[in-house]
Amino acid sequence: MMKFELGCHLVYSIYEPSTFVFNIGVVHNQYQQVEQEKLEIYPRLEIEEYNNPFNGNRYLRLNAPKCQMEISYQAIVELHHFLQDPHEVQEVTPANLPLEILPLLLPSRYCQSDQLINLAFSEFGHLTPGYSRVTAICNWICQKVIYLSGSSDHHTSAYDTATERVGVCRDFAHLAIAFCRALNIPARFVNAYAYGLNPPDFHACFEAYLGDRWYLFDPSRLVPQTSIIRIGTGRDAADVSFATIFGMVEMNEMRLSMQPLPDPTTGKVDQPFFTTEAIAIS
Amino acid sequence: MMKFELGCHLVYSIYEPSTFVFNIGVVHNQYQQVEQEKLEIYPRLEIEEYNNPFNGNRYLRLNAPKCQMEISYQAIVELHHFLQDPHEVQEVTPANLPLEILPLLLPSRYCQSDQLINLAFSEFGHLTPGYSRVTAICNWICQKVIYLSGSSDHHTSAYDTATERVGVCRDFAHLAIAFCRALNIPARFVNAYAYGLNPPDFHACFEAYLGDRWYLFDPSRLVPQTSIIRIGTGRDAADVSFATIFGMVEMNEMRLSMQPLPDPTTGKVDQPFFTTEAIAIS
Amino acid sequence: MMKFELGCHLVYSIYEPSTFVFNIGVVHNQYQQVEQEKLEIYPRLEIEEYNNPFNGNRYLRLNAPKCQMEISYQAIVELHHFLQDPHEVQEVTPANLPLEILPLLLPSRYCQSDQLINLAFSEFGHLTPGYSRVTAICNWICQKVIYLSGSSDHHTSAYDTATERVGVCRDFAHLAIAFCRALNIPARFVNAYAYGLNPPDFHACFEAYLGDRWYLFDPSRLVPQTSIIRIGTGRDAADVSFATIFGMVEMNEMRLSMQPLPDPTTGKVDQPFFTTEAIAIS
Amino acid sequence: MMKFELGCHLVYSIYEPSTFVFNIGVVHNQYQQVEQEKLEIYPRLEIEEYNNPFNGNRYLRLNAPKCQMEISYQAIVELHHFLQDPHEVQEVTPANLPLEILPLLLPSRYCQSDQLINLAFSEFGHLTPGYSRVTAICNWICQKVIYLSGSSDHHTSAYDTATERVGVCRDFAHLAIAFCRALNIPARFVNAYAYGLNPPDFHACFEAYLGDRWYLFDPSRLVPQTSIIRIGTGRDAADVSFATIFGMVEMNEMRLSMQPLPDPTTGKVDQPFFTTEAIAIS
Repeated sequence: MMKFELGCHLVYSIYEPSTFVFNIGVVHNQYQQVEQEKLEIYPRLEIEEYNNPFNGNRYLRLNAPKCQMEISYQAIVELHHFLQDPHEVQEVTPANLPLEILPLLLPSRYCQSDQLINLAFSEFGHLTPGYSRVTAICNWICQKVIYLSGSSDHHTSAYDTATERVGVCRDFAHLAIAFCRALNIPARFVNAYAYGLNPPDFHACFEAYLGDRWYLFDPSRLVPQTSIIRIGTGRDAADVSFATIFGMVEMNEMRLSMQPLPDPTTGKVDQPFFTTEAIAIS
Repeated sequence: MMKFELGCHLVYSIYEPSTFVFNIGVVHNQYQQVEQEKLEIYPRLEIEEYNNPFNGNRYLRLNAPKCQMEISYQAIVELHHFLQDPHEVQEVTPANLPLEILPLLLPSRYCQSDQLINLAFSEFGHLTPGYSRVTAICNWICQKVIYLSGSSDHHTSAYDTATERVGVCRDFAHLAIAFCRALNIPARFVNAYAYGLNPPDFHACFEAYLGDRWYLFDPSRLVPQTSIIRIGTGRDAADVSFATIFGMVEMNEMRLSMQPLPDPTTGKVDQPFFTTEAIAIS
Repeated sequence: MMKFELGCHLVYSIYEPSTFVFNIGVVHNQYQQVEQEKLEIYPRLEIEEYNNPFNGNRYLRLNAPKCQMEISYQAIVELHHFLQDPHEVQEVTPANLPLEILPLLLPSRYCQSDQLINLAFSEFGHLTPGYSRVTAICNWICQKVIYLSGSSDHHTSAYDTATERVGVCRDFAHLAIAFCRALNIPARFVNAYAYGLNPPDFHACFEAYLGDRWYLFDPSRLVPQTSIIRIGTGRDAADVSFATIFGMVEMNEMRLSMQPLPDPTTGKVDQPFFTTEAIAIS
Repeated sequence: MMKFELGCHLVYSIYEPSTFVFNIGVVHNQYQQVEQEKLEIYPRLEIEEYNNPFNGNRYLRLNAPKCQMEISYQAIVELHHFLQDPHEVQEVTPANLPLEILPLLLPSRYCQSDQLINLAFSEFGHLTPGYSRVTAICNWICQKVIYLSGSSDHHTSAYDTATERVGVCRDFAHLAIAFCRALNIPARFVNAYAYGLNPPDFHACFEAYLGDRWYLFDPSRLVPQTSIIRIGTGRDAADVSFATIFGMVEMNEMRLSMQPLPDPTTGKVDQPFFTTEAIAIS
């Protein structure tokens, strides 16, 4: 068990009446138990909430007038990780995958798996299928792609990153997802809170469907996996932007915070750690 | 009311045990009333069916051994179109769209609306919002993009077609979808049976969400809209391939057929026609 | 006649021994008569000069140690424009073009004319060939592409700009060149000093081969054509970068200056002006 | 010494008066001594010849009326290879390269070396500079890129091939050139006659500037390097198309032939062979 206090604070200048769809609240499930949660918006605006039944993503829509707007989300979350011996985590053939998961084998805007099939097979096709193959993909990306802030933008896709070999966590995740799908391993993008990013920011990683569930992977290796708290999952970053905005708006400030909290029974603060075990939070 | 007998017949050489996911059955709803339907597979193989609750798509999965396989689908479908005066069909702002429809505003593999925003606004931004603006998009594509068989492949996307100005019905639909989404009009890809293609083939067109429903548009202008029978809808062609195949397989034959049937009450065969009315089948 | 004093001053931090190839000196020809010219480098380094016989470009190579380096170029240039009635300036067919000019019909790194043929013909194919058609290309770009500093980078090409419809003067020139070549009009990129840019910077425009010479065009419309002083011409920006650098180097400062000088006979300063006449400086 | 009889025969249907620029004659130099050479065109048309002084390419321009045209080129060529111990062939730094060779370090239409810098350095940056590093690039491509006829088209570039990992000899050469330039090794595209292609066709390979000359490399490994006879060199395939055509024309036939001839002094036919020596023909 691990416990975190986390939050984000966003400030916008809105130059004309605009619509926002936020995706900043953590997913509620047995692995992410939300103890407290608080959303504050100034000025006070009506909010409409939509929870996607398929993946648990929580979307908030609000229509804002011309104004300066602040939105802040705070939560205390207890994480109960599902951990497994990686040697026991197998790939599932398309013959046996749950049918509702098949769309996560398809190429998407930022993960053109159809164009990376030869590359994926040449690099990973000979490896033993299973959890270790997805780990090999993460190792490859971590070693061969340079992490460089500002090196990519919102148009950058896995196709670019495979060749240009530079990017940020979002690009690392897109490339890993594209490789997985090219190898017939379902994979989805994860937007998350995570502990230890400097400067603090939303984090991007991914999940691959292996055995009977979605396992978490982070090819950036920037944060301990045990500190990753899921906000949203989708085909790629397009689906889980923390803010999709329709209107003329400027973001003035984005502050994220995250702290481990003491275990109430022991009073000790467990520090998040890197693990080589197979880990899942959904 | 219009009635059609339609079908497809597919033959594959399967060189190793392979998995197929077919999407060839017409969607069942009040606008597409399926009177008879027959699926035949040789050799006889077990079939697993998955109906997507969100869009009505019907997926069939089957695992085939090394063999020669034939699959054939036949149906008789009565079409009851929803028709509307186009002047009364309005665009819906992101502030008012049903929240579950918002993902159809996002860019996808073949519809990079994020990269076409300036082009879309420069060409269509000044037009009166509404059904007529989507029609203007279809006119633009029909006039400016050359229809040429074999000019594109399964990697070709709206980004390419916008510049190279050549493609087939699938490319026309992708470009129209990307323009719509760039203008904040939800749009989705439609795979369909349609009457009058020469040679007969599956047809691709698209639907835009206007007013309170998904209206049908066909920028290729190759077939009367009243003959289009929906098989599947998705973000783009990746979602609704008539056959997604995992394994070493060659397609040897694909035959499609479609015939209008007489109205049982009048005995007369109504020929499908082009219409300028707003038309919907979902 | 028009006379300018112009110059540039560049400062670099050089972190390891590095090689520079500068292309900052103005081309010497009868239209650009260089009265005075001064090059200063600190620290004093040996310079090797190469003048391309084909296009008059002047390249300076120098090998610098780890140091802080300053290079400054100053010149006084008298411009004698070749001016012509645009109605008398014709396109030249590939059958009649000087053979050494044919390579300027070919696609290049940033001007993929091969991929823009349909777009070019659809937009400009029906226009009367000649100077006015190249003007129409410039008008199209000036109207349909948004000029926005920082919107593109050194990877951005005509293919991107045709679709994304945003860029800077370099992108405007690349797109114009690609359109010209697609229409079988030879075109080349021009790097130049020009009067009136804010902030001062090197300017990019292009030349099209019409009649018996290279005529100057500026689709950005940012500066009077009569103030453009040619530094280099090439297939595209790759050929005429003001500094091609091999080594670990950071540019700390770039200052450009340009002032019209009085005519010595009249004592009057002629201000550069926009012209609708066909204009050439080579 | 090696001797070949070679030729090509091309047949075109010309639907309107059209201009052709052919590049089919072998380069004349001390390594490629042309004993006999014959060009036949039917119908008899006037030909204009242009020999590029920089690289020896020979261009033929002819203006053809509406007709059926045949052009045939035959030559007997004695090859005197420059051979060298590869260990003695060094890379030349940009500080020491002949200045007129620097443009062959720049990116071009099909060789976007600027976008492949990270990939090139990650794969080859740690290798000892010299002939063996270019050999390592060829090995990498030969092993990692699948050779597949029809898998690419005239739009395919090194950027695509680096990621899609499939192509033909032209794509192999483009990728190798892009890698070399990214590593600051000048490289140019070579169009050639070569012995042993099945079906016979023009061959594409490349040259890298090392030591004091252009050495020949063939990442496709399809033909013995000692049988490669240079037709043209350029930045990439755009520069040395065997036929650049302006007009409405269809190619009906292309036949190439090539045979080793006996050495006149010994009467023996020397068969071309693969060599690991550094080899040059210019």
